[in-house]
Amino acid sequence: MKIIVVYDISDNGKRNKLANELKKFGLYRIQRSAFEGDIDSQRVKNLIRVINGIVDIKTDIVHIIPLGIRDWERRIVIGKEGVVGEWLV
Amino acid sequence: MKIIVVYDISDNGKRNKLANELKKFGLYRIQRSAFEGDIDSQRVKNLIRVINGIVDIKTDIVHIIPLGIRDWERRIVIGKEGVVGEWLV
Repeated sequence: MKIIVVYDISDNGKRNKLANELKKFGLYRIQRSAFEGDIDSQRVKNLIRVINGIVDIKTDIVHIIPLGIRDWERRIVIGKEGVVGEWLV
Repeated sequence: MKIIVVYDISDNGKRNKLANELKKFGLYRIQRSAFEGDIDSQRVKNLIRVINGIVDIKTDIVHIIPLGIRDWERRIVIGKEGVVGEWLV
């Protein structure tokens, strides 16, 4: 299934760590703090475990939102989605 | 239709301005830089115009993603979605 993951994490180290984990799950960065990609439901459970191990739930918040492919294709992008790769370093 | 709006805007003033505009469109903050809500397609056009008037497309990026209500209800939240009101000030 397709998901987007959007996060608001105050600590730089934790934020970078989560970004690296999301890449390992095969997700793609669409913004500094947002990823999208395809993942099966079993791996979503693993992902939730990983996220729980990184974030501070007192201060941070992460949304995992399932999304139909049609809906994703209908997204509107204002700005340069294409240069998102610059943040992948 | 239901949408989520996720943004990455470097300038503090512009970021706050966009947040205020999104509230005026009746959307609800779910994270520091993410809103959700219901909006008809005519008003989405107005919203796009407003966003284009605020952001710097050389540095900023905004996604407007349509979403089925079922998908939204299936979202997973790690952290305190309930305290999101603190950011509404």
